[in-house]
Amino acid sequence: MTVLTDLTAHAGPTTTPAAAGAPTPKAAPAPAPASSIHPMVDRSRLAGTDAQSSAAHRVYEHLVALWAPGVIEAAQDLGAFAALTSGPATAAELARTLDTDPRATRVLLDGLHAYDIVERAMTEDGEIRYTLPVELHDVFSPGGLYSLAGKINYDRSLAWNAWRDLAHNVRTGARDAEGGHQLNQISEEEYTSLVRGINFWAPPIVSALADALREQGWSTGDGAKVLDVGCGTGIYSQLLLREFPLLTARGLDVARITPIAIRQAKELGVADRFEPTVVDFFHDSWGGGDLALFVNIFHLQTAESARELMLKAAKEINEDGVIAIADHIVVEDTHGAPGVSDGADAAGTGSVQNRFFRLFAASMLATGGGDAYTVEEYDGWLADAGLRRIALIDTPMHRLLLAKRA
Amino acid sequence: MTVLTDLTAHAGPTTTPAAAGAPTPKAAPAPAPASSIHPMVDRSRLAGTDAQSSAAHRVYEHLVALWAPGVIEAAQDLGAFAALTSGPATAAELARTLDTDPRATRVLLDGLHAYDIVERAMTEDGEIRYTLPVELHDVFSPGGLYSLAGKINYDRSLAWNAWRDLAHNVRTGARDAEGGHQLNQISEEEYTSLVRGINFWAPPIVSALADALREQGWSTGDGAKVLDVGCGTGIYSQLLLREFPLLTARGLDVARITPIAIRQAKELGVADRFEPTVVDFFHDSWGGGDLALFVNIFHLQTAESARELMLKAAKEINEDGVIAIADHIVVEDTHGAPGVSDGADAAGTGSVQNRFFRLFAASMLATGGGDAYTVEEYDGWLADAGLRRIALIDTPMHRLLLAKRA
Repeated sequence: MTVLTDLTAHAGPTTTPAAAGAPTPKAAPAPAPASSIHPMVDRSRLAGTDAQSSAAHRVYEHLVALWAPGVIEAAQDLGAFAALTSGPATAAELARTLDTDPRATRVLLDGLHAYDIVERAMTEDGEIRYTLPVELHDVFSPGGLYSLAGKINYDRSLAWNAWRDLAHNVRTGARDAEGGHQLNQISEEEYTSLVRGINFWAPPIVSALADALREQGWSTGDGAKVLDVGCGTGIYSQLLLREFPLLTARGLDVARITPIAIRQAKELGVADRFEPTVVDFFHDSWGGGDLALFVNIFHLQTAESARELMLKAAKEINEDGVIAIADHIVVEDTHGAPGVSDGADAAGTGSVQNRFFRLFAASMLATGGGDAYTVEEYDGWLADAGLRRIALIDTPMHRLLLAKRA
Repeated sequence: MTVLTDLTAHAGPTTTPAAAGAPTPKAAPAPAPASSIHPMVDRSRLAGTDAQSSAAHRVYEHLVALWAPGVIEAAQDLGAFAALTSGPATAAELARTLDTDPRATRVLLDGLHAYDIVERAMTEDGEIRYTLPVELHDVFSPGGLYSLAGKINYDRSLAWNAWRDLAHNVRTGARDAEGGHQLNQISEEEYTSLVRGINFWAPPIVSALADALREQGWSTGDGAKVLDVGCGTGIYSQLLLREFPLLTARGLDVARITPIAIRQAKELGVADRFEPTVVDFFHDSWGGGDLALFVNIFHLQTAESARELMLKAAKEINEDGVIAIADHIVVEDTHGAPGVSDGADAAGTGSVQNRFFRLFAASMLATGGGDAYTVEEYDGWLADAGLRRIALIDTPMHRLLLAKRA
């Protein structure tokens, strides 16, 4: 079988090696990456405007961010994306297909265009025709592997009200009767819908993980077994199976989820190497393995249950086993630097990842869930379990932490 | 009195002169201006990711834009900004002041920091302290001249539900029983609250207007009178009175609004030159003037009532009078260019102004109102009224159209 050696010795360009206990390296100021969110204020025309009016323009731009999910989700509700997947259309044509008001349909389409969701061009006949780019067809289709349909359903049924009422949960702390964090409020049906709606995160995370494993000598994955703990659809281990053709995987989740994982393993052609297993992963055995993979599992825990889960992982993996955690892992860099903002880039708000992690924590406060923990907290749980962090890798909206026995 | 001459001959650097009937100049591809909205996806880590997953990351970033008003409005609901206006605080200190949960308060503050609303720094004691920058103090205070408090109240009571249910209005066209546009749904109380909540737009618009008027020979405004039609708080004419110390203004609005305008004229020290007048501006006389100013009035009209209002304005202004319209004036540049997207900059979505105007039209579809009309539509109404456009000037979130008699 493949033996995993210490990744620190083989750190590639995307890897931030860090010995356990060593201080976390200070993040270099990142160049401001391009946002998908285009500005709605022409700041070049604000020169000379008084500071309060200018600041109010900035805050207003944040407040009207509400419009983006409003426009996109309305189009999904109406079936506009499904219709545009059949082919481009004018507003009048789409209104006939959807049985909607023509003028209002034009306003909706122009709004989608303002968010870069549909293309807008004048035809030879002088009409405006709207096109849904091909890479977005499956994003709005419930059946698409990287579909957001489930995420949109979740937003419609839960997120809008939860976010509008966030103040309530800040007052109460969103604690349950026993004083623990409020459990995720979503119903089983909503969870089943949501679980595929966040598959899209997987490709760049699996790509980063596979690169790190190849640097450790993994070639085909022969003899190695992945434990995909709380696997959901199983997308992470299933994509890993496609990277390593002799690897096998066990997907651990509850009974209502494993059928989804089985279906998807077939769809991805890896069903013969993907074994779904219904377990309570805090109390049942995981059956041993070489790589224990936790994606978006730790942020759902309390600090206490996170520590407990790490102890369990240390017991379950083989002697040379690796633990891989893809999650919202905040890297503070204020330590020892009084008066310095953390992770400050030119915009002063820290890395893209820290920013997303902190807002995701607010999202969990709104809708129920856990927290975005810092790398120091992860290091503490690792140390308690006799493990040490060997790498921390940035991905588009997560960080990937790798650990081995200390 | 000041005589206004044709602005076309004196076009300054911010002016796009355009003779009536002449084709609108094609907008040059704009450099992408900085957005206040920081990215939440580290796109540098998406290289090599498949097109669908990459596209889904982009759409997800739009969907979670919901979080920005959620975080900011929750903080306003809880009184967090009022408390931070008194001075910086740690999460624990603020939780004591607001009687909120300490952990949840920390999550909220970190969320505000992610949106660049509060600063976050470590103190000498190793605690994280949060500061509301001084230019934001009045932005969240109900009494601030450029306060967004009214806009936030409006969002809380109306916008969230209206946006979540946008699909309904796309189906029905948001028509009233007579088939006209649905009137603005907000109550009188909400309107009174909102009217001051959009004062912040005024300074850069008035600055652009004053520059254009100075180029025409206005120095003190001696002998000239502004008609501020649908004046609201009167902020536009009141700031213009401060630019031109001998100018006088008449603010035309309904009875429930004029007391607000009178109070604010006193606050700005121009009450002796600002005369509020309760009129139905479609049917009553405006009393004549040299500059008829319409800010955010035309977008509330139907095409029919916009044309009617322009006819009325032409009758009311003096022979050499100017009409100034600050509004959402879309400049299409697809005309005569089949297959070319309109106003496309590098991002492919047109100018910042067009993008905002189209989304504001969607906002009016959600909450009731009119439309974002194109400059060709304005030119048509002008021509019908014996007027011609003499300038079109970009401002941060509007365009300023100036017209005279043809």
